[in-house]
Amino acid sequence: MILKPVPISAEQFTPFGDLIETGSDPIAINYGYTERHHDLASLDLLEQEGRPIVSIFRSTPLPQPVTLNVMERHPLSSQAFIPMGNQPYLVAVAPAGEFDASKIRLFIVKPGQGVNYHRGTWHHFCLALNAVSDFLVIDRSGKGDNCDEVTLVEPITVDLSDCEESTAR
Amino acid sequence: MILKPVPISAEQFTPFGDLIETGSDPIAINYGYTERHHDLASLDLLEQEGRPIVSIFRSTPLPQPVTLNVMERHPLSSQAFIPMGNQPYLVAVAPAGEFDASKIRLFIVKPGQGVNYHRGTWHHFCLALNAVSDFLVIDRSGKGDNCDEVTLVEPITVDLSDCEESTAR
Repeated sequence: MILKPVPISAEQFTPFGDLIETGSDPIAINYGYTERHHDLASLDLLEQEGRPIVSIFRSTPLPQPVTLNVMERHPLSSQAFIPMGNQPYLVAVAPAGEFDASKIRLFIVKPGQGVNYHRGTWHHFCLALNAVSDFLVIDRSGKGDNCDEVTLVEPITVDLSDCEESTAR
Repeated sequence: MILKPVPISAEQFTPFGDLIETGSDPIAINYGYTERHHDLASLDLLEQEGRPIVSIFRSTPLPQPVTLNVMERHPLSSQAFIPMGNQPYLVAVAPAGEFDASKIRLFIVKPGQGVNYHRGTWHHFCLALNAVSDFLVIDRSGKGDNCDEVTLVEPITVDLSDCEESTAR
């Protein structure tokens, strides 16, 4: 199967999680030197004595053509990824519940935009583009098994042919 | 008073909080495509029915010469700032407890490095350099008054004269 990514939007991503980005209604603080774009994600990290943690994921791009073979979900928590650099990246998701490969959606995300996968949303692991890229990750430490993985019966090849502009450095 | 910033290090920053950066001992995950630099900050966000939240702070550089007039602290929580772009920034801190201007330390921080102020650490608000810059902020929503501010009797002028290399785009 071949999929082309589409630019992410908060509306399209709503079934899967939160798009973490600046908006049109910030709060002016710090004598006007800071715009606070407030409370942008539904963090869900405290189940079963969970605690929120921050990590950095250093992601190496997959070889071209990018091929997706697995998806994962976290049944006990959300997981947020925020890029720390100036490269775009890919996000592949499918709805929570029983995994359905026919419902996989593929997005391209600009630097400056983060994503927060809601609890149970199926997603591919970090998919950097163009260069090794660091992501700030907000997830959970705690009891219980918090990662399920499925192997795709039919791998997905990513068609990046119309993404030259988005993926250019 | 004139202060020159010094490059931040985890060791020097320990009395004030956590330096959030990649280290030498990551965990290899995702079939080797991701290095997980795990659990890099002591988040302290749950006091008085607090909940962790994420926001984006869009920070405008202060006019040159950069002059510091105020410091603040959060008595109920930590507060983390992670740059989302490729510019350095300044961090001014003083130890928790009764405010002592003679103990202010000034650091310059590279892109790719975040800071997590521990509960009660005095700090200046977000100090972008070179360009308007976005920071991912992890702090607390909840009951209680969680911000104290002091005005410096003697403003601090920041001497950036030796920071050309660090502050260059």
